[in-house]
Amino acid sequence: MLEELKRAVCDANIKLKEYNLVTLTWGNVSAIAQVDGKKYVIIKPSGVDYDKMTADMMVVTDIDGNITEGNLHPSSDLATHLELYRSFPEINSIVHTHSRWATATAQAEREIECYGTTHADNFYGKVPCTRPLTSDEINVDYELNTGKVIAETFKSFKIDPVSVPGVLVCKHGPFTWGATPQKAVENALVLEECAYMAYICQTLTNNSICPAPQVLQDKHYFRKHGKSAYYGQQ
Amino acid sequence: MLEELKRAVCDANIKLKEYNLVTLTWGNVSAIAQVDGKKYVIIKPSGVDYDKMTADMMVVTDIDGNITEGNLHPSSDLATHLELYRSFPEINSIVHTHSRWATATAQAEREIECYGTTHADNFYGKVPCTRPLTSDEINVDYELNTGKVIAETFKSFKIDPVSVPGVLVCKHGPFTWGATPQKAVENALVLEECAYMAYICQTLTNNSICPAPQVLQDKHYFRKHGKSAYYGQQ
Amino acid sequence: MLEELKRAVCDANIKLKEYNLVTLTWGNVSAIAQVDGKKYVIIKPSGVDYDKMTADMMVVTDIDGNITEGNLHPSSDLATHLELYRSFPEINSIVHTHSRWATATAQAEREIECYGTTHADNFYGKVPCTRPLTSDEINVDYELNTGKVIAETFKSFKIDPVSVPGVLVCKHGPFTWGATPQKAVENALVLEECAYMAYICQTLTNNSICPAPQVLQDKHYFRKHGKSAYYGQQ
Amino acid sequence: MLEELKRAVCDANIKLKEYNLVTLTWGNVSAIAQVDGKKYVIIKPSGVDYDKMTADMMVVTDIDGNITEGNLHPSSDLATHLELYRSFPEINSIVHTHSRWATATAQAEREIECYGTTHADNFYGKVPCTRPLTSDEINVDYELNTGKVIAETFKSFKIDPVSVPGVLVCKHGPFTWGATPQKAVENALVLEECAYMAYICQTLTNNSICPAPQVLQDKHYFRKHGKSAYYGQQ
Repeated sequence: MLEELKRAVCDANIKLKEYNLVTLTWGNVSAIAQVDGKKYVIIKPSGVDYDKMTADMMVVTDIDGNITEGNLHPSSDLATHLELYRSFPEINSIVHTHSRWATATAQAEREIECYGTTHADNFYGKVPCTRPLTSDEINVDYELNTGKVIAETFKSFKIDPVSVPGVLVCKHGPFTWGATPQKAVENALVLEECAYMAYICQTLTNNSICPAPQVLQDKHYFRKHGKSAYYGQQ
Repeated sequence: MLEELKRAVCDANIKLKEYNLVTLTWGNVSAIAQVDGKKYVIIKPSGVDYDKMTADMMVVTDIDGNITEGNLHPSSDLATHLELYRSFPEINSIVHTHSRWATATAQAEREIECYGTTHADNFYGKVPCTRPLTSDEINVDYELNTGKVIAETFKSFKIDPVSVPGVLVCKHGPFTWGATPQKAVENALVLEECAYMAYICQTLTNNSICPAPQVLQDKHYFRKHGKSAYYGQQ
Repeated sequence: MLEELKRAVCDANIKLKEYNLVTLTWGNVSAIAQVDGKKYVIIKPSGVDYDKMTADMMVVTDIDGNITEGNLHPSSDLATHLELYRSFPEINSIVHTHSRWATATAQAEREIECYGTTHADNFYGKVPCTRPLTSDEINVDYELNTGKVIAETFKSFKIDPVSVPGVLVCKHGPFTWGATPQKAVENALVLEECAYMAYICQTLTNNSICPAPQVLQDKHYFRKHGKSAYYGQQ
Repeated sequence: MLEELKRAVCDANIKLKEYNLVTLTWGNVSAIAQVDGKKYVIIKPSGVDYDKMTADMMVVTDIDGNITEGNLHPSSDLATHLELYRSFPEINSIVHTHSRWATATAQAEREIECYGTTHADNFYGKVPCTRPLTSDEINVDYELNTGKVIAETFKSFKIDPVSVPGVLVCKHGPFTWGATPQKAVENALVLEECAYMAYICQTLTNNSICPAPQVLQDKHYFRKHGKSAYYGQQ
């Protein structure tokens, strides 16, 4: 079942490589769908090369992570994906990578401020960085707690996961999401580019540069999103 | 009508991808031409992938932005292009990208100083960065006002748009132009390279480096441009 | 003899180019194997282009460096490889490159701290940088002494070469190793990526950033290595 | 005449593009040869695309720059090349590029110190940066004077152009040379890599890093060059 979505998840995983967002096998894409009132998650198998990956290798689980289809182990980050689907019911696909600039920014424990319209076109406001996980959160149910600390971050900063479709996990790396696997992967690409540009303008100015004014952020974000959007071929 | 120029505009858009100046669909090229005494602008459609783009998708408008040919929405930056054609009658083609180094420099609210002969071969003096747009300029007729603030920048700094064929829009990114779509795209490529090199020499010297002396800038610029040029195969 | 391993060593050398870890001929891979109770080392010939390299060009020597097969001179770094095989009997393959970020970090005489989970997934703790060689060590038996100073570094810092499969040689560049030629090359790729990310997060924070907490390093390293590993398809 | 060398010069020009050392048409290669006791220089034509370049487009001049073969204008940097051939009779081929990191270092008016063995394997000591040209030197016979100031730099610093086969021209960019066009282009590639690595280790350490000790530079340079060389397949 869900053959079409399996193909979309597989294609999106391969796209990570094309977009230069992964080294070796360091990245995974999942998607969620409902069949007969039950939710299923499709996710990349763990540690498989992108160039040997086929749609029928994708693993299907229920919302609690029980495998319902597939002969391979699912990505070791499965529990993080599941927690995000439970916390953010609006999202349909999740991407995790160790893409260079976003990951290094997460290692620096920095959020990605919105320094210009490239960021504002895609993320409404800064992309937050989570707090560090506690030792207990790391030692037991680490992947689940990674999802929980992401949800906590959005809740405590009152950020809407639809308008800010990504996050940096402290000392780890980025997660992004979207309405489709392709869109979630595009958000991973955009986040990487925004992290790179933020680095450049921060180091060029000795970290003295201000974010883009709110009115400019509003203009660009709502030019592309929501009811008054006028970008693209609607 | 203008089939040849449509092809040139389409080719130049595709060249943006080849030159590595765009992510996803973030860049557009336009050109202006006169037919029977009336001016027409040809521009990329909004949000279309470069690898699916064909010449007949190009949108044709009059100088006021009324569509005269084409079934797709024009680039959302159309009004900026039109204002630049009205303000700079000498130019025939305009390019807008979010290329990494030029955009990050714009986010840093910095102009691109002429630090060496690579810059001087192509831009006669620094490439300016506009002032920020006001809230009013952003809220109403944003794209038109983006064009106006560019024109204002060249006027107030007394810069000739022919010898400095590019600008950074504050917190946004670069616009370049030229005599043909190919030339305008080459200027986008050169501006990106100059922004990158300027970053390197500024960070290497803690921002203590001086621009190239005027006499060297003169030599290099006029070696390639104007009556006494002796570069190339004239 | 050892035809299969020759092919693996040759393939791994070519992989260095694919992974963008070498300029010109600046990198080499070797492997060790036992035949009839005697150890043999297979290594790339010196100064040969990767795109002209074939398995039968590989040079075979005994553990003292006496050539037993092959018509070409072995890599000039052979003595370093031999010393490492003698000092670290657990390892089966060694890679040396001048990859950009790892080499520049070695030139800066810096170790690569573990700033995040990307590093911790692959190296258990910091990747050390050796002390400089003395003039005597450079003047006589330089390549042998390079191997010795690497072994000394692991011994004096009490680092296990299996869990930290790489090192920076001061003012020179990286060596990595692994259970197979492919794994040793992957470690070279990962080390380069970790060096790059460490640079980014150090320069972004004016060198004020802390390593990842030990508990997080433990979690990620042992998720992928050892008895309790649960990454991949075991 | 000199058909084989024309082909080598043409191939070396095309190699500049493959090695990622040029943007647009910004780079040129020349070579010198003797025929019947007279010296001839073969050089790339000015402003011609690398992918349209063929051996028969190469321009041949005598040592004073008079064209003896070819229908195209020679590179506008011809006079610099000629002056270098007159000043450095040991060299057979010259390359000029605006490669990014070497050029930006020249813009920063910095020499490239020898920070490690990658540099020492190829350049014996620092790669110098010339003094700025005076206004008079720029206004009259600029290209000739560029060659003269390079020669002056090597003379005043007592640097041997054979063991340091390259230079940065202040505010301009790199020139390299070698025994053959291929070797001169390889030196351009190595110089670019050394400039990049020098940037990394300088910015990582706030410009507080020391050059490699002389004994290490000696070891690496003479391992690859001169009578006692033992690198490669001699």
